Amino acid sequence: MTRPAPDPVHDGPATTADELRTALGALLDGPWADVRRRLREGVDAADVLLDPQATLEEQRATTTAALLQLTRQGLVGLRAPGPDAGPADVGGTVAAFETVAALDLSLAVKMGVQFGLFGGAIANLGSDAQHATWLPAASAGELLGCFAMTEVGHGSDVQSLETTATYDAAAGEFVVHSPTRSATKTYIGNAARDGRMAVVFAQLVTPDDSSLPEGVDAEEPTHRGIHALVVPIRDAAGAPLPGVTIGDNGAKGGLPGVDNGTLRFDSVRVPRENLLDRFGAVDAAGRYSSPIDSPGRRFFTMLGTLVRGRVSVGGGASAAARSALTIATRYADRRTQFAGPDGEVTLLDYRAHQRRLLPAIARSYALQFAQNELVGTLHAVQQTSPLERDERAQRALESHAAGLKALQTEEANRVLQTCREACGGAGYMATSGITQRRHDADVFATFEGDNTVLLQLVAKGLLTNYVKALGSLNMTGMLRYGATQFSGVVVERTAAKGFVNRMVELARRRDIEDVVMDRAWQVECFQYREQHTLETAAARMRRSRRGSEAEQFAAFNDVQDHLLLAARAHIDRVVLDAFAEVVQGVRDPDLATLLDQVCDLYALSVIEENAAWFLEHEHLRGAKSKAVTATVNALCAQLRPVAGVLVDAFGIPDAWLASSLLDGQDDAGLTA
Amino acid sequence: MTRPAPDPVHDGPATTADELRTALGALLDGPWADVRRRLREGVDAADVLLDPQATLEEQRATTTAALLQLTRQGLVGLRAPGPDAGPADVGGTVAAFETVAALDLSLAVKMGVQFGLFGGAIANLGSDAQHATWLPAASAGELLGCFAMTEVGHGSDVQSLETTATYDAAAGEFVVHSPTRSATKTYIGNAARDGRMAVVFAQLVTPDDSSLPEGVDAEEPTHRGIHALVVPIRDAAGAPLPGVTIGDNGAKGGLPGVDNGTLRFDSVRVPRENLLDRFGAVDAAGRYSSPIDSPGRRFFTMLGTLVRGRVSVGGGASAAARSALTIATRYADRRTQFAGPDGEVTLLDYRAHQRRLLPAIARSYALQFAQNELVGTLHAVQQTSPLERDERAQRALESHAAGLKALQTEEANRVLQTCREACGGAGYMATSGITQRRHDADVFATFEGDNTVLLQLVAKGLLTNYVKALGSLNMTGMLRYGATQFSGVVVERTAAKGFVNRMVELARRRDIEDVVMDRAWQVECFQYREQHTLETAAARMRRSRRGSEAEQFAAFNDVQDHLLLAARAHIDRVVLDAFAEVVQGVRDPDLATLLDQVCDLYALSVIEENAAWFLEHEHLRGAKSKAVTATVNALCAQLRPVAGVLVDAFGIPDAWLASSLLDGQDDAGLTA
Repeated sequence: MTRPAPDPVHDGPATTADELRTALGALLDGPWADVRRRLREGVDAADVLLDPQATLEEQRATTTAALLQLTRQGLVGLRAPGPDAGPADVGGTVAAFETVAALDLSLAVKMGVQFGLFGGAIANLGSDAQHATWLPAASAGELLGCFAMTEVGHGSDVQSLETTATYDAAAGEFVVHSPTRSATKTYIGNAARDGRMAVVFAQLVTPDDSSLPEGVDAEEPTHRGIHALVVPIRDAAGAPLPGVTIGDNGAKGGLPGVDNGTLRFDSVRVPRENLLDRFGAVDAAGRYSSPIDSPGRRFFTMLGTLVRGRVSVGGGASAAARSALTIATRYADRRTQFAGPDGEVTLLDYRAHQRRLLPAIARSYALQFAQNELVGTLHAVQQTSPLERDERAQRALESHAAGLKALQTEEANRVLQTCREACGGAGYMATSGITQRRHDADVFATFEGDNTVLLQLVAKGLLTNYVKALGSLNMTGMLRYGATQFSGVVVERTAAKGFVNRMVELARRRDIEDVVMDRAWQVECFQYREQHTLETAAARMRRSRRGSEAEQFAAFNDVQDHLLLAARAHIDRVVLDAFAEVVQGVRDPDLATLLDQVCDLYALSVIEENAAWFLEHEHLRGAKSKAVTATVNALCAQLRPVAGVLVDAFGIPDAWLASSLLDGQDDAGLTA
Repeated sequence: MTRPAPDPVHDGPATTADELRTALGALLDGPWADVRRRLREGVDAADVLLDPQATLEEQRATTTAALLQLTRQGLVGLRAPGPDAGPADVGGTVAAFETVAALDLSLAVKMGVQFGLFGGAIANLGSDAQHATWLPAASAGELLGCFAMTEVGHGSDVQSLETTATYDAAAGEFVVHSPTRSATKTYIGNAARDGRMAVVFAQLVTPDDSSLPEGVDAEEPTHRGIHALVVPIRDAAGAPLPGVTIGDNGAKGGLPGVDNGTLRFDSVRVPRENLLDRFGAVDAAGRYSSPIDSPGRRFFTMLGTLVRGRVSVGGGASAAARSALTIATRYADRRTQFAGPDGEVTLLDYRAHQRRLLPAIARSYALQFAQNELVGTLHAVQQTSPLERDERAQRALESHAAGLKALQTEEANRVLQTCREACGGAGYMATSGITQRRHDADVFATFEGDNTVLLQLVAKGLLTNYVKALGSLNMTGMLRYGATQFSGVVVERTAAKGFVNRMVELARRRDIEDVVMDRAWQVECFQYREQHTLETAAARMRRSRRGSEAEQFAAFNDVQDHLLLAARAHIDRVVLDAFAEVVQGVRDPDLATLLDQVCDLYALSVIEENAAWFLEHEHLRGAKSKAVTATVNALCAQLRPVAGVLVDAFGIPDAWLASSLLDGQDDAGLTA
């Protein structure tokens, strides 16, 4: 179980660097490698990349044109590219999003808005008839649309949206209305410039059921909760339709190619058929029906069908980070600075520089293996209708997606900043290829769910186990606060994989010096942290007195940081499991050795980052903790010669990196 | 010594919130409050702020116009604004830079380039006659200039610059030349658009001294090291002069108002009088003379006169961070999200949100008090001619400036990102006032010295003590590698202030439960970390075998991360000392109580961040470390009601914040 640490690339007849690169690339690309390959070969970066000196309107026009060009090429759409891709190729569409994200996040987000959010909402929430009405044009890029969920007053808290859709039985129409200023839809992609229609999330109001037998003039309307309707917003010429006020969010911190805007509805009428009615329909007389009785369960089921967006966003942020890591690593591998024993020293030979880049590379491997696993689960789960789906599997998927998205986007922001700084002044020039990615990825920490809110959801899902087990009404009261999503449904901690548990058993029986290089010891650390943070959070909540609502909120708030910690610990463990499983499956000994070291570096860098926690809980002693740091340093030095191979395996075409900092190119600034 | 923790703002006749705000503002503004006030009152934000949708050229034009407008108003120039400000009012010019930085970093950098770098280089490196020739026009904004130091091949390593300035005695001229492509000057502010002249740093080459008695035709030229020359680069109409090739760095990660460009010189001739000759002159015959014999000391003396730039950059980054903190805190103090016991909960009432913002506010206080102390030292030291200056004081100043700049700019980047995320999607809109600051401040981690290089300089300066004390030639060999600056000159660890040492003595004698709230205990933690990291770094270097050059480099590299840690620990201690001294000097009891808590939060958040180190070294046990975290949480909650007062005390005018997220303004996005 304890692995020696030989040179990762052997001399002699063993695996060559090229073979390693190819093999690593195949592991990273995962089951949808063909989708990625089609896009890498088919997309011309020149069609896509934005001119950083262009105006916002010019940049938006470039991204829209690129979207339409790729649609014409059959490379993007509601389906993933390729002969095998059908509507059910969910994994393929995520792989396509990730692949484009390595090139340009504006285009990826524009694609995501059009096909994933707008098209995806119709596909997931609409009936077959509704699919036939809108999806062909949406998929062909002929009907550009918006996903109008977020409002000025409410971002992550979807249940509190204020927009209403009130059924008028006499006219057979829904009246879509923004009752307050804070009900304005905002940050809506495709709204400011291109969108012709919007899927609008609104509180559905129908005439009172009880009065229906007598007539359609209800006095007491019934609130049916959040539903989605297709609402035309512009005419063919691009002018806003009557009652629709469209605003422009203007310049943002990034994503200049995406035309985010605002939408307000002043009693806008749409036909009854425009309510996406797979999970809730209103008949001509105004009678509401749904295949799901519980309003709460209905809401979470509807939102749950949209989980692909969150999975895509996490994967896309990681992809942008890999592009920056490729640039920064190649630059560090040739740029020299300050005299050494033999001329100037290459940046990547400095320990401080190795520590900036190599753990980040190891993490990018870990996160991508976890992403591939998640996408596989998503794909499998979504082969079944939401109504027939195993609810636990669905909730586990949502929890996994929420947690991984938070970690991926947080790490992407950190890596992009590190890469910028690691390239010095050259990294700050737009020609480096790093700055636009840094700006664009920033908001990935917020959209498709604020990371703090998402981690809280993960923790609450996990704690639901304890509520059930202990029958603690007090905890149920506390868990109401902040975001909720997995209400009442137990989310099981995904079980550790069998081979991982066997490793841990073995490790407990040994006492070896190089224990920190022992995968089983590493896994055991991750498991201990996961279990302990969760159990102590539950214990703290259980202990707190059952008091007034204010006291319950205070008790929840007091444990909030602990909940976030437990969520992180959980996802860290899930990520390590995914990496360990990939390593376990590799047969080529050279590849196995290399990947094993990358996995060690990932695991130890996480343990090092959380060393204070392990030390506080006496799971590490000082000497062991220092050994972790020393081993991270040693692994960085050991992997340094193959750093180039590790980033080349990301497989991003040079033209896509669009960087002046690659080998053989001019340094930034030599534009005269 | 142990302070109670009452409500920061008392009821009754004690200090009001307004009085607290005013008093805190006075402490933050420090001795040059009048300079700051003049600018806050005199600068119209509408003249300065950039239109995020404008083209790069339009943005550059805005910043240039703003610079000239403020120059006409007498608000910016080589001198600080105000009747008392003379050329020696060094502190005033830094305060002016910091103040403008709170409004817009493009303008601050443009000012810094024109007056601090271009004008400052002439002022510091030139003779009185040269001052008379160029400074009046430079100060009036009539002569815009560049500071051409960085080259494509060399950023932080100034001694390795390749540009040459060779004296041609026959013509009485210097020939300025870029011998290689990597000698191209790059990232030079004012170069792409506005600059008419440049102070060019080049390797000075003079005819061989020994041959001079016989004649001026020297066969063996002598390299005199880095010197600066004034080189005209454009004619009055703005066209590049013959032999000068000007390039444009184009779009960058931020600072769009600054026209960074490249400069190449093809045997460009300038009169002998254009060599800035305060520290090195060449007579008509080509004889070199300098008031400083040692070439090394001369180089460091010349660079040392430019330390104000580094002090300004650190202060400017902190100022931008304070602007973002003001916006994010005010937003969090009114924005509600998710249901609580009484309607929706205000963001700042969530613990997770408090932990994002309140420690950052406390750090911004700490860093500004340290900045004020540093500026005071800078001002005092620069009252004396560099040739008569106490060398130890100068080196201590440089070390302090390098270390504080690294911490300030790192923290500013972190805070700006946190503020963006804390404002959610609204924070990503350009109208939030956060995104441009985030983009601009990014490069502050790099310019005026890459942070890693600067921290290394600090550590090496500190270690020089040990070299002297131990006579270790081995260490001297190792310390050559990476950046060097304080060569051979002992930098003393600035002594702990007297009252601090007395507090520590008292603390050692007690064993109280609330020890983590005891300033003396906090200081002792900081001191222990500083001393231990430094001593162990020295010990590791001393132990390493004295081997070949390659082995010495490897030994240096092996300890590089340890050196960076020691530098951080040193500067952290300097910052806490500065904060503790300010608290010590406050007489108003309410103000003292409040500031004491802010200082506690600063100190404990740093201890918490470094908890792993303290635990590893058994300076903290698990229970104490957990108590630190619990106390940080408690302090956040305790300070939450006065968070608004704490940020209002930053004193940034509302119009300067330029944010749609302030009280009474529309939320971002409502631009329709």
